[in-house]
Amino acid sequence: MLIVIQCIDKVGLVAAISGLMEKEKINIISMREHVDTTENLFFARLELLPAPKTDPQMLYLALQQILPVDALIKINPNPQKKIVVLVTKEYHCLGDILLRHQFKTLGATVQAVVGNHLVLHDICSKFNVPFHYVSHENKTKEDFEAELLQTIHQYPLDYLVLAKFMRILSPSFVAQFTHNIINIHHSFLPAFIGANPYKQAYERGVKIIGATAHFVTNALDEGPIIVQQVAPINHSYSVTDMVRTGKEIEKNTLAKALQMVLEDRVFVYNNKTVVFE
Amino acid sequence: MLIVIQCIDKVGLVAAISGLMEKEKINIISMREHVDTTENLFFARLELLPAPKTDPQMLYLALQQILPVDALIKINPNPQKKIVVLVTKEYHCLGDILLRHQFKTLGATVQAVVGNHLVLHDICSKFNVPFHYVSHENKTKEDFEAELLQTIHQYPLDYLVLAKFMRILSPSFVAQFTHNIINIHHSFLPAFIGANPYKQAYERGVKIIGATAHFVTNALDEGPIIVQQVAPINHSYSVTDMVRTGKEIEKNTLAKALQMVLEDRVFVYNNKTVVFE
Amino acid sequence: MLIVIQCIDKVGLVAAISGLMEKEKINIISMREHVDTTENLFFARLELLPAPKTDPQMLYLALQQILPVDALIKINPNPQKKIVVLVTKEYHCLGDILLRHQFKTLGATVQAVVGNHLVLHDICSKFNVPFHYVSHENKTKEDFEAELLQTIHQYPLDYLVLAKFMRILSPSFVAQFTHNIINIHHSFLPAFIGANPYKQAYERGVKIIGATAHFVTNALDEGPIIVQQVAPINHSYSVTDMVRTGKEIEKNTLAKALQMVLEDRVFVYNNKTVVFE
Amino acid sequence: MLIVIQCIDKVGLVAAISGLMEKEKINIISMREHVDTTENLFFARLELLPAPKTDPQMLYLALQQILPVDALIKINPNPQKKIVVLVTKEYHCLGDILLRHQFKTLGATVQAVVGNHLVLHDICSKFNVPFHYVSHENKTKEDFEAELLQTIHQYPLDYLVLAKFMRILSPSFVAQFTHNIINIHHSFLPAFIGANPYKQAYERGVKIIGATAHFVTNALDEGPIIVQQVAPINHSYSVTDMVRTGKEIEKNTLAKALQMVLEDRVFVYNNKTVVFE
Repeated sequence: MLIVIQCIDKVGLVAAISGLMEKEKINIISMREHVDTTENLFFARLELLPAPKTDPQMLYLALQQILPVDALIKINPNPQKKIVVLVTKEYHCLGDILLRHQFKTLGATVQAVVGNHLVLHDICSKFNVPFHYVSHENKTKEDFEAELLQTIHQYPLDYLVLAKFMRILSPSFVAQFTHNIINIHHSFLPAFIGANPYKQAYERGVKIIGATAHFVTNALDEGPIIVQQVAPINHSYSVTDMVRTGKEIEKNTLAKALQMVLEDRVFVYNNKTVVFE
Repeated sequence: MLIVIQCIDKVGLVAAISGLMEKEKINIISMREHVDTTENLFFARLELLPAPKTDPQMLYLALQQILPVDALIKINPNPQKKIVVLVTKEYHCLGDILLRHQFKTLGATVQAVVGNHLVLHDICSKFNVPFHYVSHENKTKEDFEAELLQTIHQYPLDYLVLAKFMRILSPSFVAQFTHNIINIHHSFLPAFIGANPYKQAYERGVKIIGATAHFVTNALDEGPIIVQQVAPINHSYSVTDMVRTGKEIEKNTLAKALQMVLEDRVFVYNNKTVVFE
Repeated sequence: MLIVIQCIDKVGLVAAISGLMEKEKINIISMREHVDTTENLFFARLELLPAPKTDPQMLYLALQQILPVDALIKINPNPQKKIVVLVTKEYHCLGDILLRHQFKTLGATVQAVVGNHLVLHDICSKFNVPFHYVSHENKTKEDFEAELLQTIHQYPLDYLVLAKFMRILSPSFVAQFTHNIINIHHSFLPAFIGANPYKQAYERGVKIIGATAHFVTNALDEGPIIVQQVAPINHSYSVTDMVRTGKEIEKNTLAKALQMVLEDRVFVYNNKTVVFE
Repeated sequence: MLIVIQCIDKVGLVAAISGLMEKEKINIISMREHVDTTENLFFARLELLPAPKTDPQMLYLALQQILPVDALIKINPNPQKKIVVLVTKEYHCLGDILLRHQFKTLGATVQAVVGNHLVLHDICSKFNVPFHYVSHENKTKEDFEAELLQTIHQYPLDYLVLAKFMRILSPSFVAQFTHNIINIHHSFLPAFIGANPYKQAYERGVKIIGATAHFVTNALDEGPIIVQQVAPINHSYSVTDMVRTGKEIEKNTLAKALQMVLEDRVFVYNNKTVVFE
């Protein structure tokens, strides 16, 4: 059994929660907690061995009793989430996701893939995942996004994953999926915000490049960071070499971020995350 | 206030401990716990804000009441430990320790340095730390170690630190300091146990080298590992280059291990450690 | 144009080679060289812009003239190598290889996959790669390997890739593919040679785990190392967690090693490699 | 013998240089070269075993003959450079430099240390290195920098090292030391330019922090990068924890950059570096 809690902090929360579990004869296998003392917020994630007669609904009510008002409580969040993936032309992130989907190690079902190019149609077919082609060409952004939304909303979904989707989404689009859009950005944010980060990195002469998986908010490349990874480079790297190395980092960073999010290890507040890795 | 606990695991320990703190109006700033389910052992480290009238002695007794028999409990372990450092000729680990000692960021006082060579006498003088020269030459191992012990035992000490001390200590010597001798080994253990690890690494053609800080037990290079760090190398590295790179890793690895141990973040059991980093 | 050279070292080799290129009006885009001074061996890899009338055959003869007898010279080695992949049950390495094969970023064509279990048949079908099932059960090792060889030898191949193939190959099998078998070993060799390395690592209490891609020789896990990668772990990792983390490292390590080998960046001598990354 | 060359690229440079060495019976131990094809620039660093009668002055003239006009050629640059170190209050970078200076592993002599606070006077005394106190208080920036310059210019120097010197230097000051001022910046540039980078990093919620050693130019934190290093962090890190971790990275990054520069492994052009590590 998995329980995640996010609420205002107060003295005795750990005692109250663990006391409740003891009373209910629920064994705590692992308990992770964090307090942001500046913001006075409490976060916890408990892996539990329930007692034979544990009733999740009763437990939820009992937790509500002992936690502050407005506490966010999830008991046994769906372990097999539903995602829709948006792509453009690059296969490296999508391919990795499809493989994990196929072998049931993703922690999610890929409902569909939506691409603004056709390139990745075939790989989706191989994995029997629906691919929808929604071109952005000869359309206003408004129309393009309306079409995207219509396509996406055919499917139930927990998260929308931007796996190298190279269009910037408008605030009104993003507003429909608060903290439910995960993007992989091809730089070590906040360095090299915006377009062509590898070209920017090349010109700046950095010695390390990286990638950032983050939730999407209305501010471009400014959303809460989930995972960052880096790799060393040197003067011999052309922009092409950096892109190549970068793709490996992007793929691994997004995979790690998805694992964290899909296992309910990530909490968002303000513009930050708590990640119980 | 700091409390560390190591005991047999049983249901409800976290609830009992955190309940006690709440009852005593002690605020838990941070609580780290770990259960080794195979060995059925419980480990915890609590940073606390005591109430005005908290009495550590009473708290100790109260903890004894709620914890299993034979629980190892430390309340406010000495934050400024005492160490003696054993060295041979290389300065890189000792120098780093002396600097931190001088600027009071080591978390320990260097009582004395004992060297089986004279090379490092001067640097100790600069920092006003007593240096004792105990040569191993023309002596039986037994006599050498007896002399070492006599020198060391002039000083109160919590830990004996082998900062590139290049003599192997006998079981009878080690037996006097169970889990209180910290060594820096110049390889990524268990690879390259024994002498000349960089030469071994060169000959094996590895692509990464490392260092291991561990507690010393009677089995050579087999003690509980505290911290390991690595660095990439390649075919262009001579043994000399590897030694040079290795020294930087050794210095950083020992520094990190000392920080962890001296802040009471390390627990030892069987041949392993729990490190609440 | 690509040229790789491996020969006994002598004074003036770089001058002779670069002088020849200048005479032939061939532009050197990149030149990497290494001398193992202990073994007196010279290694070079040149990326070149040939002149309009450059004749590779003539250039080969000209190089033979200026290089020591027995120099190993390759001009324009096949950029699209042929590989056969041996697997058992785990998909993570094979899946990554198939994806790169599909999108033509592998630098090789996967001729076929041979498995001693059937689990990975389906994924091969998706990518239209022949899968051969050669069970080891109820067979002598001799018979099993004879069958393997017969299957493999249906295909032309440059390299045999063991992508988590969990059977130990006999010397007589290995002898047929000197320096042409690439294996991914699930530990940071030479630590944890043999079976169950993650279990060994768990029991030893290491703080870093890794993977090693190496050429296979007759000595188990002792062949020349191509690439090693690592990841930090801690006391909270169960063997299962270590396996999971390890699979990511294995996949990335094998992918990097394949890239290096398939781009003719790797030279083997004694039990070592030169890798011009 | 060491030779470094930086010049406009043209066909045949490697052949010409290595041919000259062969003619002069000078053995090339290691040769590193790089061509920036965009900028059409050639960089080389040669470690050589000179012949008994090699005359560096004659060799210089011979190189001038074969290299493009305006080639920058250094033969046997001083292996023991002279540096002056500017500091404020933090000891970690300076202490590391003084230790290496003391044990003659720095590759430079620390001529003097200049501090705008008195805190680090004592540690310099221990190492018999002159310390000059030049306060910035109650002075115009102009006067402060004039006093700094007067103090610095008492000493011959190759490089000025800013080892956590917390004042921004004016363009006119910097102009006097083109590519000869090395700074350690406490962030992974170009992320978090300017003041309080750890606070910025904390607020942005990054998962990795870093440090950057770079040459100082007039644009704040915009100079050519020499070395960057990073360390992972997570939500549990306070700003104080980040500063503490950051100091270790800063120290190591500056040490590596100094090694590279002082061994004449670094070339600067435009706003970039070539580092033959």
